[in-house]
Amino acid sequence: MDLKSIQNYSNRKINLSGWVQNIRGNNKIQFIQFRNSGKIIQVVCEKEKLGEEKFLEIKSLDQETSIEISGTVVDNLKSDLGYEILLDELKIVSSSKDYPITPKEHGPDFLHNNRHLWIRSKLQLAILQIRNELSYQIRKYFYDRNYVLIDTPILTGSIGESAGTLFETEYFDIGKAYLAQTGQLYLETAIFAHDKVYCFGPTFRAEKSKTRRHLTEFWMLEVETANFHNEDNLALQEDFIKTISLATIEKSIQELKVLGRDIEKLKSYFEKPFVKISYREAIEILQKKGEDIKFGEDINAERENILTSEFEQAVFVKNYPREIKAFYMKQNPNDLETVLCADLIAPEGVGEIIGGSEREESYDKIIDRLNEEKLPIDSYTFYLDLRKYGSVPHSGFGLGLERLIAWICGLPHVRECIPYPRLMGRLDP
Amino acid sequence: MDLKSIQNYSNRKINLSGWVQNIRGNNKIQFIQFRNSGKIIQVVCEKEKLGEEKFLEIKSLDQETSIEISGTVVDNLKSDLGYEILLDELKIVSSSKDYPITPKEHGPDFLHNNRHLWIRSKLQLAILQIRNELSYQIRKYFYDRNYVLIDTPILTGSIGESAGTLFETEYFDIGKAYLAQTGQLYLETAIFAHDKVYCFGPTFRAEKSKTRRHLTEFWMLEVETANFHNEDNLALQEDFIKTISLATIEKSIQELKVLGRDIEKLKSYFEKPFVKISYREAIEILQKKGEDIKFGEDINAERENILTSEFEQAVFVKNYPREIKAFYMKQNPNDLETVLCADLIAPEGVGEIIGGSEREESYDKIIDRLNEEKLPIDSYTFYLDLRKYGSVPHSGFGLGLERLIAWICGLPHVRECIPYPRLMGRLDP
Repeated sequence: MDLKSIQNYSNRKINLSGWVQNIRGNNKIQFIQFRNSGKIIQVVCEKEKLGEEKFLEIKSLDQETSIEISGTVVDNLKSDLGYEILLDELKIVSSSKDYPITPKEHGPDFLHNNRHLWIRSKLQLAILQIRNELSYQIRKYFYDRNYVLIDTPILTGSIGESAGTLFETEYFDIGKAYLAQTGQLYLETAIFAHDKVYCFGPTFRAEKSKTRRHLTEFWMLEVETANFHNEDNLALQEDFIKTISLATIEKSIQELKVLGRDIEKLKSYFEKPFVKISYREAIEILQKKGEDIKFGEDINAERENILTSEFEQAVFVKNYPREIKAFYMKQNPNDLETVLCADLIAPEGVGEIIGGSEREESYDKIIDRLNEEKLPIDSYTFYLDLRKYGSVPHSGFGLGLERLIAWICGLPHVRECIPYPRLMGRLDP
Repeated sequence: MDLKSIQNYSNRKINLSGWVQNIRGNNKIQFIQFRNSGKIIQVVCEKEKLGEEKFLEIKSLDQETSIEISGTVVDNLKSDLGYEILLDELKIVSSSKDYPITPKEHGPDFLHNNRHLWIRSKLQLAILQIRNELSYQIRKYFYDRNYVLIDTPILTGSIGESAGTLFETEYFDIGKAYLAQTGQLYLETAIFAHDKVYCFGPTFRAEKSKTRRHLTEFWMLEVETANFHNEDNLALQEDFIKTISLATIEKSIQELKVLGRDIEKLKSYFEKPFVKISYREAIEILQKKGEDIKFGEDINAERENILTSEFEQAVFVKNYPREIKAFYMKQNPNDLETVLCADLIAPEGVGEIIGGSEREESYDKIIDRLNEEKLPIDSYTFYLDLRKYGSVPHSGFGLGLERLIAWICGLPHVRECIPYPRLMGRLDP
């Protein structure tokens, strides 16, 4: 029995183990904010019922003391859970002296230094429960559609796109191994076996950037589909984001209320079509808004905000210039300066949550692009083999989990969207 | 439409994209082993129906050519899928010259060097589909029981149990970061927030060992439960392993047949109780079998085999000596030389698949154990805080995914149980 199934215990006796999140009251009645299973309920403790001695013991309970309680569940429509508990008995399991995180305000550094305790706080409970729900819905979406999970390796020998942002480690007598910053190239090998595949795991970027949107270790979903073109890929992404987000919202109403989220507004993002514009159109819009930007430049975070504010919705920006995108993206046959790709930009300042493209399936064209980019062809032997032995059109995308959580939870910074954030200046706890 | 839903197309026309796994036949009829979505079906090509020219084109198809076919699905009870396709039309998408993996035997080194192509082979398709199913069933089991996923960090600052087996990397100006070989300590912090938690991700061991059971990068499930004792923990493990394994077998009958597995025998492991013996009993059994082993020694792989052969079943070995187990395990109150723990040993030579224990919840006792083991107390600050602020009894365990796959698939080596195995001597592709 736990607080997640409290609705089955209305007007019934209940026994629970948990913690004193907080306590307040007067000399006749005390109210414990009691935590169990990531939920918090009010426990009402009356002196008249419990006796002087027990009441005084309760009144002096310290924050985070672990306790066992028994009592009766009754309706309380004003509370988050809809119930409260009238206490019959209480037993202390273990004490808690001078718990460092008090109900007063603390600075972010202090809270991150105490992340192992901070995760017990009300907002943090809600965020990590939403992360749990969303992670499960992501996997369920692809499992239900016959996608096969391919766990791509973290330790890799060959260097991919940009060596400068890779963590490296000594690997026995072989030399250096690098922590993967994408599973895509491996995932592409697997479409030839299973047609529809995905991976979902930790990903690493040794980027020296301190922004609200970057972690050095984050979770990324990557999806790859055989015999699939750019437009199919966009349709899949839109259906995917809408399906998993609405399912998560449905299951997380209590948590979203704790986070102060406007649930109707949030749902509306996932009930109407996402906007689709080309990169060329995006540049025109930005120029009209007075931005000094021209074809060939990347669209930075501030400019992403201008675009999503224009539409008050998530925006696909399609067909970026070849010169600023990766070598494996397929050239756009209708506009040769661009490639068949799209980024999905989320509103509310969240920014890019998905990057995807159709992949170049021609061996000769991939070789040309590698040469153009001065990338070492030897490092791509296995990838090039895929274009030799039964190549097929295919497309894929990558989603940054923490950014989607930030969008759903309405958080300005991705660092609270993962249990133990890793940033340029933070490796502990 | 894909071959996974072929049963919906019996006696109907079908269009499919896929690959030529193999082709054989004579001058009147050719049989293509056609691959799509990790499944293989026979496509029957008759000269009389297709005409001379098309038939000759088909007859000269190379292995791994990508093709589009249309035809009629008909019953064929002798085949793996229960169906075959009578070809009407065939179009070549892309050629495949000199595919390196032919139907003849290849050595393991050659196959691992070509892992990106080898994953297209029949047995490898089956294994990775079983991995996909099992991974999903694991997550479903815990999601359905209100466990919360806590993605524990890979990059960690403090050194855990044994620094000698950790991969390390430079972390900006902070110093060295280590790749986590367990998420347990972080997972323990989260039971105070969510009571029931798990993590499931890649794990790293820089061990210089070349055995059938070790990878340097493998996937581990770890589970931690508040207010949970050793016996509760064992009951959870047994129910968990049985539930997910039977669900996976049920969904993977075709794959298990491809792998030559005796399905009734395999199911029987998960339908009868697991054996539970103490470490002391295990030592007695081994001594009776003539082994030169005494209390205090670890039970190695060969001796694990002797135990499981004795019972022809998975065996929990409980309550190991304190001196050979980790500092965080709770002392056994009924036998002070031992701890409240258990390893689950799988039969058929697979060996230990789970290690678990009740955790010591007393601050003072943990400190004593750290000192006994000469471990640096400073590195455990956050872990020790958990015993200061509302400590509770709790227990947990860790499961090595690839070993469970090896058991279910009947494989002698874990290296085929992961898409891209990482071993002491292998980092590529």
